Amino acid sequence: MMNNSENFYSATFFLNASECNAQRIIPLPLLVQRLLETATLHSTALKAGPRELQSMGLAWVLSRLTMEMSSYPGMDSTFTIETWVESINRHFTERCFRIIDNQGNTLGNVRTVWVAIDIAGRHAADITELMSHVTPTPGLCPVKRQLKIPSVTDPDLVRRHRFNYCDIDFNRHVNSTRYIETILNDRGVEFFDNHTITRFEIAYMNETHYADIVEIARHSDGCVSTVEITRDGTPVTRARVTYASEIH
Amino acid sequence: MMNNSENFYSATFFLNASECNAQRIIPLPLLVQRLLETATLHSTALKAGPRELQSMGLAWVLSRLTMEMSSYPGMDSTFTIETWVESINRHFTERCFRIIDNQGNTLGNVRTVWVAIDIAGRHAADITELMSHVTPTPGLCPVKRQLKIPSVTDPDLVRRHRFNYCDIDFNRHVNSTRYIETILNDRGVEFFDNHTITRFEIAYMNETHYADIVEIARHSDGCVSTVEITRDGTPVTRARVTYASEIH
Repeated sequence: MMNNSENFYSATFFLNASECNAQRIIPLPLLVQRLLETATLHSTALKAGPRELQSMGLAWVLSRLTMEMSSYPGMDSTFTIETWVESINRHFTERCFRIIDNQGNTLGNVRTVWVAIDIAGRHAADITELMSHVTPTPGLCPVKRQLKIPSVTDPDLVRRHRFNYCDIDFNRHVNSTRYIETILNDRGVEFFDNHTITRFEIAYMNETHYADIVEIARHSDGCVSTVEITRDGTPVTRARVTYASEIH
Repeated sequence: MMNNSENFYSATFFLNASECNAQRIIPLPLLVQRLLETATLHSTALKAGPRELQSMGLAWVLSRLTMEMSSYPGMDSTFTIETWVESINRHFTERCFRIIDNQGNTLGNVRTVWVAIDIAGRHAADITELMSHVTPTPGLCPVKRQLKIPSVTDPDLVRRHRFNYCDIDFNRHVNSTRYIETILNDRGVEFFDNHTITRFEIAYMNETHYADIVEIARHSDGCVSTVEITRDGTPVTRARVTYASEIH
């Protein structure tokens, strides 16, 4: 199904023991990090990477991510991430991914939405010209578009969290993967011995910065946790985590 | 100076924009992670990797690390880590590293000490036989052996920290790099705009686990911060961080 044209890009990674989580598989934040790296490499190859955008006063911002995982790369395994642009609109682009083991089996599929923001003006930029030479490839990704993740109104857990120096990325915002860590950290090691994430959806709604203090509210129902991160009442991130088995 | 025999191992990495810190260089915890990966790859090639040790009921534990850095890999740069075993004793092995840019310039040198612990008995194992086929290479590493890092008796900062799910590694201890994060997180983004770490020393003294709450005490003097992490009064980790310029 894949070809080697510049419309597709793939990167292969080895999961070192020292990178694994307590379950001896790839930590979800690291898997998302690998997706971001592969996206960066592809967008750079397409002459629409972070450096090109920076020279135009723009930056790519991840807006939504939906992952559907049947299995995860394990300790000492090699895996490949394939990526392509699925659609391009004036203000956002959809980029999809397939995660494949070294036998060619699909471990998971991912759909993401990216917005190019004007750094000075803090508004979405028109990316029509920037992406005019990129040919989108629709129809390959089995992951449906993300449905709205609701606010958490009946939480079973509420806590506060401060973002620190090591949470900040090269654009001086909280790194996208650090919200995922924060969400997973509401559960313990033994919980993850018994619960595998089969679907993970996150919407990045507003940025946070160094020393921001956020509130995390979680509601669990059946196999699904909904998590909302807010700062002074403003939604920052919402996520929906689906486990293979019931939470209780 | 280096050769390609099995006594030496080198791995090359690309620093993706999405991995960089606010200063657009490699985060120190990620650089240490890359050192650990390279060590794991070399020890595996030497048939003394985590899997071999696990089959013997043992695990490698990083005991001390001393880094001397003149510069750090920057955004979109390629760098190489060379590693070799410097010495082997009955209970520990010294492993050294050189970090090199893609022009062959040395960015930094690192000395580490590793102990193989008996997982069931929680004591240091005799590694004489395990390492009998490995030829150490003394004299190459310019980093001196780590001097004892004192306890912090006159702190200018004390705080408490809880280790969470994402801090736990494949051996179910707190990941070595997470202590480094915790130490750096006592400073802010703007501090690191003006202060570069030229020397970083850490001694791992006792393990911590999921949900452990530790106390972090820091004392600063001139260009040097000394940090001690304790759990219920027991020292867990001590570090000495030297900056290129005075802290105040």
